[in-house]
Amino acid sequence: MDIKDVVLNKAIEARDGARALIKASSDKKNRVLLKMADELERAKEVLKKANKKDIDNARKKGLSNALIDRLTLTDDRIGEMCSGLRFIVSLPDPAGEILRMWKRPNGMSVGRMRVPIGVIGFIYESRPNVTADATGLCLKAGNAVYLRGGSEAINSNVAIVEILRKAAVSEGIPEGAVTFLDITDREAIYEMLKLEGIIDLIIPRGGEGLIRTVTANSHIPVLKHYKGVCHVFVDRDADLKMAEAISLNSKVQRPGTCNALETLLVDSAIASEFLPAMKKRLDDAGVRLKGCDESRRILDGIESVSDEDFDNEYLDLILNLKVVDDIDDAMAHIADHGSGHTETIVTEDYNKAMRFINEVDSSAVMVNASTRLNDGGQFGLGAEIGISTDKIHARGPMGLEELTCAKFIVFGNGQLRE
Amino acid sequence: MDIKDVVLNKAIEARDGARALIKASSDKKNRVLLKMADELERAKEVLKKANKKDIDNARKKGLSNALIDRLTLTDDRIGEMCSGLRFIVSLPDPAGEILRMWKRPNGMSVGRMRVPIGVIGFIYESRPNVTADATGLCLKAGNAVYLRGGSEAINSNVAIVEILRKAAVSEGIPEGAVTFLDITDREAIYEMLKLEGIIDLIIPRGGEGLIRTVTANSHIPVLKHYKGVCHVFVDRDADLKMAEAISLNSKVQRPGTCNALETLLVDSAIASEFLPAMKKRLDDAGVRLKGCDESRRILDGIESVSDEDFDNEYLDLILNLKVVDDIDDAMAHIADHGSGHTETIVTEDYNKAMRFINEVDSSAVMVNASTRLNDGGQFGLGAEIGISTDKIHARGPMGLEELTCAKFIVFGNGQLRE
Repeated sequence: MDIKDVVLNKAIEARDGARALIKASSDKKNRVLLKMADELERAKEVLKKANKKDIDNARKKGLSNALIDRLTLTDDRIGEMCSGLRFIVSLPDPAGEILRMWKRPNGMSVGRMRVPIGVIGFIYESRPNVTADATGLCLKAGNAVYLRGGSEAINSNVAIVEILRKAAVSEGIPEGAVTFLDITDREAIYEMLKLEGIIDLIIPRGGEGLIRTVTANSHIPVLKHYKGVCHVFVDRDADLKMAEAISLNSKVQRPGTCNALETLLVDSAIASEFLPAMKKRLDDAGVRLKGCDESRRILDGIESVSDEDFDNEYLDLILNLKVVDDIDDAMAHIADHGSGHTETIVTEDYNKAMRFINEVDSSAVMVNASTRLNDGGQFGLGAEIGISTDKIHARGPMGLEELTCAKFIVFGNGQLRE
Repeated sequence: MDIKDVVLNKAIEARDGARALIKASSDKKNRVLLKMADELERAKEVLKKANKKDIDNARKKGLSNALIDRLTLTDDRIGEMCSGLRFIVSLPDPAGEILRMWKRPNGMSVGRMRVPIGVIGFIYESRPNVTADATGLCLKAGNAVYLRGGSEAINSNVAIVEILRKAAVSEGIPEGAVTFLDITDREAIYEMLKLEGIIDLIIPRGGEGLIRTVTANSHIPVLKHYKGVCHVFVDRDADLKMAEAISLNSKVQRPGTCNALETLLVDSAIASEFLPAMKKRLDDAGVRLKGCDESRRILDGIESVSDEDFDNEYLDLILNLKVVDDIDDAMAHIADHGSGHTETIVTEDYNKAMRFINEVDSSAVMVNASTRLNDGGQFGLGAEIGISTDKIHARGPMGLEELTCAKFIVFGNGQLRE
């Protein structure tokens, strides 16, 4: 059978799984997830053995230690997969929720009901724990998952999936509910992306190259995450101590994440007071500064920032500084250079806080809070399948609700169209 | 300048328009729409003159009378464009609505606020009235619209757009808020579809060929409508008189629409009672019947239905009949042959009504109501920009709310990530 047929046949199996899951009660789905956790725990040695093959192959191929670390399954990491699945059990099931129901003049009731999306194609790279995480979230919301993991983790993924499928079957859910595409040829991804009408949604997770490839070639809707070029704007009416704490936390608490600060915008009216104190704290934290002309006039000896730097997601202890005229200048900079991810204003002024909230076009817009708080867990969404930088369907952290869609339901008693 | 540059520059103008609209109050947007209506009314003669050029060209090209009719602007149709714009003014503005707001343990308030999507690329075919309708809906929700109409209506569209742009400018909105791509070469569409990050959403409206081309080539999210293969299932516990009325209305009230009935599923327990009476009413309405073996046993002399017929959207006075064993058999047929558009069960049985509502995976699932009622106006959504057969972002009729997305907003007082 050629690649095209294999990819198609597996998708059809996944669709059969989705049709069973749409009818499954929350209790049944929760039992499947608990069973998955129990069986993964029981299979620790099997999983580590499969994982060892991947690690050996990675060493032979000369992969970096960082990549090999991401690939490695330890007892602790297997334990985390299991507790992740059990945590998902504790979350409310979004499927079946009726969002709103209203009466029409002809007497019929019309409502919107959250329902599963169907088959979710999940295309990801190295970490094998994602296999269990993504499966748990998709199944909890009533979706089948069609997984295509990276070639480096193929042995680990196949071993994990075998256990996940058995757990589904033990509760009467067809094994297609968890479908894994074990063809590592890139061609297989292109074939998946053509299966409009069978696969309902594609979520890619990995480097920018993978995501751009998927977006450019998909006939299926894609929910994706590009970069986060996040800003803090320190207004002239800010509490400057609070501004220091928020800027520092946004930059250094975990600089390698998409919601970390990349450019600090400082109101010219308080720049000469704020910047020297801020620089001291950033220096202590080992942050390298790149500044505009005005900030370099205030702070001696810092590097010069370029226009390209302002578009850069450093993911590192590097920070751009820019002195701006006022809130309008700050918002114009954000519109020109931001990636629509996370922006914060620090101010005590009510009107400027409200303008920032209303006018800045980002997935999360904050007043007086660290950009690092833009996160599914911090926002109270429960688990997170990813963060969307799209504006369609989901924007920002995506929880279980984002793995559903809303259909219309109608309760009539004989209504006709006049 | 080559096509690529023209398409890009216009998109950048549209984005400037979007940035102004995100800040515009509902009052201001309403004033723009009213001005548009007034000025279109005043320009009737200019519009009809431009339209005459399109009609003359269409005649020269030998287009069908039906197509020429769709293209033609009369005083009445211009009046409808204007009243359409005024109706949109009367609808609530979805942008700025806060859907929910909750408090986190660290004291910050997190909420979701509806905001405009940004730049909406609208790719459509012949009818020039769509130019004003789509512009009105997009602008009301705070979006810029980047229009690409069909070559047949180019003179009419250019004349309409000129008036719409002037109305925007008169209220201080940049003319890019209404951007029209006047390159009729198909290449221009492909260039539009590459402008990810500038155009935020593509809505194609037209024949299946156009929609498939757009879907296969877009790097930008697409909201689209394919076909409607709709079903009515007459359960053994139906009020058979009601079932007749609903089936007839679903099929004949306007057979050329996507929510018209294509296949009538009849429970075997009542088939021999229901079908002869139903046939009489369908015969009277001039409906041609195609039946399964069992229905042909009950009804003499009707044609035989094929498996392909069950996948067909006739958009005509033709109806498939199928006798099914029970509700499970009916739902299996719908899952195999339906397009996920609109399905109705006619029944007096509570449990079967609830099973149908919960288990059928379509944009509208109804009990005891005509499929023809799946419509933005009938559902009370106000105006409709289209009907989505996707499961992402919008499913079913799309009103103003579907032209927005929800961002997260955070009101903090110094919260940091621990």
